[in-house]
Amino acid sequence: YEYLEQELLSYRELAAETLDGHSITLRGNVELAEEVDLALREGAKGVGLYRTEFLFMNRERIPDEEEQYLAYREVVERMAPHPVTIRTLDVGGDKLVTDIDLSDEANPALGLRAIRFSLQEGKLFNTQLRAILRASAHGQVRILFPMITGLAEIRSCKNLLEEVKAELAAEGYAFDADIQIGIMIETPSAVLIAELLAQEVDFLSVGTNDLIQYCLAIDRGNEHVAYLYEPLHPAVLRALQMVCRAGQSAGIEVGICGEMAAEPLYALVLLGLGFDELSMNAPYLPRVKRIIRQARRSEALELVTELLQFGTAPEVASCLQKEMQQRF
Amino acid sequence: YEYLEQELLSYRELAAETLDGHSITLRGNVELAEEVDLALREGAKGVGLYRTEFLFMNRERIPDEEEQYLAYREVVERMAPHPVTIRTLDVGGDKLVTDIDLSDEANPALGLRAIRFSLQEGKLFNTQLRAILRASAHGQVRILFPMITGLAEIRSCKNLLEEVKAELAAEGYAFDADIQIGIMIETPSAVLIAELLAQEVDFLSVGTNDLIQYCLAIDRGNEHVAYLYEPLHPAVLRALQMVCRAGQSAGIEVGICGEMAAEPLYALVLLGLGFDELSMNAPYLPRVKRIIRQARRSEALELVTELLQFGTAPEVASCLQKEMQQRF
Ligand SMILES: [Mg+2]
Ligand SMILES: [Mg+2]
Repeated sequence: YEYLEQELLSYRELAAETLDGHSITLRGNVELAEEVDLALREGAKGVGLYRTEFLFMNRERIPDEEEQYLAYREVVERMAPHPVTIRTLDVGGDKLVTDIDLSDEANPALGLRAIRFSLQEGKLFNTQLRAILRASAHGQVRILFPMITGLAEIRSCKNLLEEVKAELAAEGYAFDADIQIGIMIETPSAVLIAELLAQEVDFLSVGTNDLIQYCLAIDRGNEHVAYLYEPLHPAVLRALQMVCRAGQSAGIEVGICGEMAAEPLYALVLLGLGFDELSMNAPYLPRVKRIIRQARRSEALELVTELLQFGTAPEVASCLQKEMQQRF
Repeated sequence: YEYLEQELLSYRELAAETLDGHSITLRGNVELAEEVDLALREGAKGVGLYRTEFLFMNRERIPDEEEQYLAYREVVERMAPHPVTIRTLDVGGDKLVTDIDLSDEANPALGLRAIRFSLQEGKLFNTQLRAILRASAHGQVRILFPMITGLAEIRSCKNLLEEVKAELAAEGYAFDADIQIGIMIETPSAVLIAELLAQEVDFLSVGTNDLIQYCLAIDRGNEHVAYLYEPLHPAVLRALQMVCRAGQSAGIEVGICGEMAAEPLYALVLLGLGFDELSMNAPYLPRVKRIIRQARRSEALELVTELLQFGTAPEVASCLQKEMQQRF
């Protein structure tokens, strides 16, 4: 075990590249500026998911533009020159102090949250977009919109972003006018029309935790149905495949920032499906890189073709485990 | 308006056939035996969805086998020789008096309900399957399992059904040993692997209400997100197309029993997508049949190809409305 730790340490400086020369971008998920240093130490080439909820929750007042700007800027500067992907507010409206009363939502997971909430709370969203854009003057920033279900939401986001750019320009602020925008793919709808959505954005990022829950119509926090949460469910694999293909057709980067990205068992599968970026909490990075560096892309492609033949998650898992045991 | 009523009356006896000779099966959704007569009067060729929840809810005790058998038998006999599709219990567990405490489910729509609940409550499910099978001695019965997400659930249902058949045979009861079994397609997962599921059953029935909600990750009962409930959302159209294609490949019937089936505006779309059966509350049958009889399948196919090009529901709706105004 200690030996493995030593070996993993040595991976931190090495490229995330397969034996047959295919590169994957490994990035970190962070919530606080301090976590950026850890991600860098573990070899992250940027932040694939910067969760901004932390700034907003458990407090009386929504943070103002300056406070957000300073927080985002610190993450961006620490990670420079690598990109930081800032996800706009992704909470259920019930978690924040606002004027909208959401305490009566019968199914909050299917309610006013994430981008729906931001689009409804114009002032709050405007402030966050201003802060993100201002932070983009200090490094490479990408904006990520959560819980998109269709083109209309993307267009609303883009329009608002353009308005904010115009405001900031008029006020003399510096920002990246060509800031990249991406969307989380975490609703089944976004999977089904991934090829349409991919034409409107610069990158896709799959949020597997929510995607699995919505695909299977389960709340994994519910003990009675948690057994149905299966990342290797054939429907999930097909969904991931559809998203990767959509990204490839559109020529844009497809990442994954859910828990699946951090599980070494799935690394070959994600490689074979065609993901360009895996983003995870820093401590998992070396283990995943180790798998990537010992694999061939061609074999991962074959493996995925084989896994897609199976009808149930246990069958997929058993085939995958056998393969992994033989190799690692 | 009176003239239209008269005209619709005349449709009741006519076949649900397009101008170019393609037949669709129109069936009724019922909850009570009395509704069967109404469905027959409106021209239904069977029951596409018999909801059994009514028998179970708002009472102290789960109905016993005999009570269920008599209820199912009455519907089956009234509808003979047309088939009756009996859906097994499709409620949230929180709605019934059982030993499982589900009052703490944070998101009941993503919880222990429908087939999940039946598979957990073995005695209750066994009793319902016995009653359904015994009713199958009195006419043509099909069993429909709700909220399927994968093959494992179908296999469990089939195994339990075979056990019940063996029990009944040993006890000397008459039943249809070749009873057809089908599944509701209402989770995104079931759409994504429809082609696998179709190989295991005799028919598919799309529950559009839930499917739309799960695809778009919304609770339409929630006023804050109800605006996102769009039956013509491009993701919904693609989902319906995937299901129809899966059924066609497997050579089995694909029906639709959600509210979409009852909306004349959607009839051409459903025809073009390739549905074999539309099932709805009786009063809607003549209006839908009128559309079918005045349409050509070939034109409906072209229309669907055109509608699938659009990126948003309002664009789809506007194209469809224009087409419908020109024709009807
Ligand atoms: Mg999410
Ligand atoms: Mg349902």
